[in-house]
Amino acid sequence: MKALGSLRRTIWPSGDARAVWIIDQCVLPHRFETRALATLQDAVTAIRDMWVRGAPLIGVTAAYGLALQARTDAGDAAIATAAEALTQARPTAVNLAWAVQRMRQALGSVPPRERADVAWQLAGRMADEDAATNEAIGRHGLPLLQAVAERRGGVVDVLTHCNAGWLATVDWGTALAPVYQAQAAGIDVHVWVDETRARNQGAALTAWELGQQGVRHTVVTDNAGGHLMQHGQVDIVVVGCDRVTRRGDTCNKVGTYLKALAAHDNGLPFYVAMPWSTLDTTLDDGLREVPIEQRAAREVTHLSGRLADGRMAEVQLVPDGSAAANPAFDVTPARLVSAFITERGVLRAADLARMAAAAA
Amino acid sequence: MKALGSLRRTIWPSGDARAVWIIDQCVLPHRFETRALATLQDAVTAIRDMWVRGAPLIGVTAAYGLALQARTDAGDAAIATAAEALTQARPTAVNLAWAVQRMRQALGSVPPRERADVAWQLAGRMADEDAATNEAIGRHGLPLLQAVAERRGGVVDVLTHCNAGWLATVDWGTALAPVYQAQAAGIDVHVWVDETRARNQGAALTAWELGQQGVRHTVVTDNAGGHLMQHGQVDIVVVGCDRVTRRGDTCNKVGTYLKALAAHDNGLPFYVAMPWSTLDTTLDDGLREVPIEQRAAREVTHLSGRLADGRMAEVQLVPDGSAAANPAFDVTPARLVSAFITERGVLRAADLARMAAAAA
Repeated sequence: MKALGSLRRTIWPSGDARAVWIIDQCVLPHRFETRALATLQDAVTAIRDMWVRGAPLIGVTAAYGLALQARTDAGDAAIATAAEALTQARPTAVNLAWAVQRMRQALGSVPPRERADVAWQLAGRMADEDAATNEAIGRHGLPLLQAVAERRGGVVDVLTHCNAGWLATVDWGTALAPVYQAQAAGIDVHVWVDETRARNQGAALTAWELGQQGVRHTVVTDNAGGHLMQHGQVDIVVVGCDRVTRRGDTCNKVGTYLKALAAHDNGLPFYVAMPWSTLDTTLDDGLREVPIEQRAAREVTHLSGRLADGRMAEVQLVPDGSAAANPAFDVTPARLVSAFITERGVLRAADLARMAAAAA
Repeated sequence: MKALGSLRRTIWPSGDARAVWIIDQCVLPHRFETRALATLQDAVTAIRDMWVRGAPLIGVTAAYGLALQARTDAGDAAIATAAEALTQARPTAVNLAWAVQRMRQALGSVPPRERADVAWQLAGRMADEDAATNEAIGRHGLPLLQAVAERRGGVVDVLTHCNAGWLATVDWGTALAPVYQAQAAGIDVHVWVDETRARNQGAALTAWELGQQGVRHTVVTDNAGGHLMQHGQVDIVVVGCDRVTRRGDTCNKVGTYLKALAAHDNGLPFYVAMPWSTLDTTLDDGLREVPIEQRAAREVTHLSGRLADGRMAEVQLVPDGSAAANPAFDVTPARLVSAFITERGVLRAADLARMAAAAA
């Protein structure tokens, strides 16, 4: 996708294959800075300190981290230590463990002296696969937006929560892939962007990347979506997901459930864009079985942004002495999800369960 | 209620009856400052710049503003001009127009030389009436919390949105009045405080006043309430209201509707604390008939707080060039409201309609 007018991915190898470049997402949307990760430790830091975020992008960054390790020491012990360090960098990210595991399996079957090249190539393939998956999600989601546009004379109003766009993946994004495909198809698509407290990924990242692609968008507080739906200002809700159970219960950024309720109450379609890898067939009842990460209270009590003079600063919002809690995700029951937009097509929860059972 | 350990109201006359004191709510929760309003213009500024906010408190401030005007010139023309200036200070506040109208009617029937004293006394009476109304709301709401406490061994978890507490009124508050009564009755009451973007009245004001009274509370993002309800961490939701139609459709701070949906979906009671004066019997269908104030986009794109060095600062959250929208209220349909806690008792929507019809 485009950033500052140039097409690029969120992660790309240097020409000499000695480093991998990323966009520092901590300073977006106020500054655009790229960083070279040249060592395993760089990759660990990038994941831990959230220079990169979004499950698919974290996974690919970890894969490159192992490849960088293999450049200096590709022995079994060094690879095992590196894998552990990467996995611990963001313990709750499912894709991270999955990507590290896939790399280790591939490396285990080749002699140490060949591992650096094999690892580098596999990391690149994983990046390509993610881009292809998301392109397919966009292609399958496009008809849903086209159907609205036909009814409304070419216009579609989408509401999304958090950032499930290009920046959370290698390319295209998940929930935003159909939006970008709709834009390419000449549809006048407009996106309502939930700011998504506590970390404001909507206000900071979704707004920025939509702006970079020239997609019309409006940032709103997380409180506003229900009102917009009541007044016919939303046609369709599309969100991403962090984990989906086999019955279709959907764990995503906290607040998603409230938007699903509002869509249901107003007779609006609520779609979850889901790479097949996000389906966790070991789980069924999302409310009981999905552990919810409790993040730092400081993300609620304090907030960072740009001062008038351009410097970044953190301000305190809550009085000294008041407690805060910060559940980071919630679970939207399958009954509130119209369908899942996957690289295999648009599937209802019942289809999901059937396909998961067939694969088991 | 208590502030810095002393009992006080949010507005009180000076000993010499030449000025009225208020708490500057713009610098809360980080600083506690009181200001004397000595002229009509002071009162207009206090309302317009939101040193005072909350419909009941705005009304009483306006009443004192007219009384201050009457001290210098109580002629018909001066009173009419002052009334207009006060009413325009916050055009959407229903209580403001109502309070000004009541003062004008009272002053119209007395000769100008007596108006200053009459106005001062009536403003004081309106303050006392508001305190008494809210005390009664608290008394009628208390049994709802007691019933939960009996079931749960003395503990109650309340969720509230925005600030409908002491600071929005002269004393007690509306939604928080039952909480303070429960505290006085020895119930271990804990409040989940929605931060309430865009202006963060929950994080700033509700958290502060609960802290001042020693009520246990936890600030959460507006996104978190659904998750808390799904996991049994909320017993009862109590909110305030800005306008209620005769069928019970409730206009309140934006995001209230989402919490009402979540309460309904989880089988939890959702109560609206409503002074009878907030019932607008001229309206029926809240979604169609209640105009929703669209506030400045800047409240979404920027946010104020306290820097580490104690100074206040405003930071930008949204990228340059991204649009923002800021609907300030939403309407919760009567079907989602368990009952209204009023100074006349706890009433269901059907009772409300019947009593409104009988009074018409």
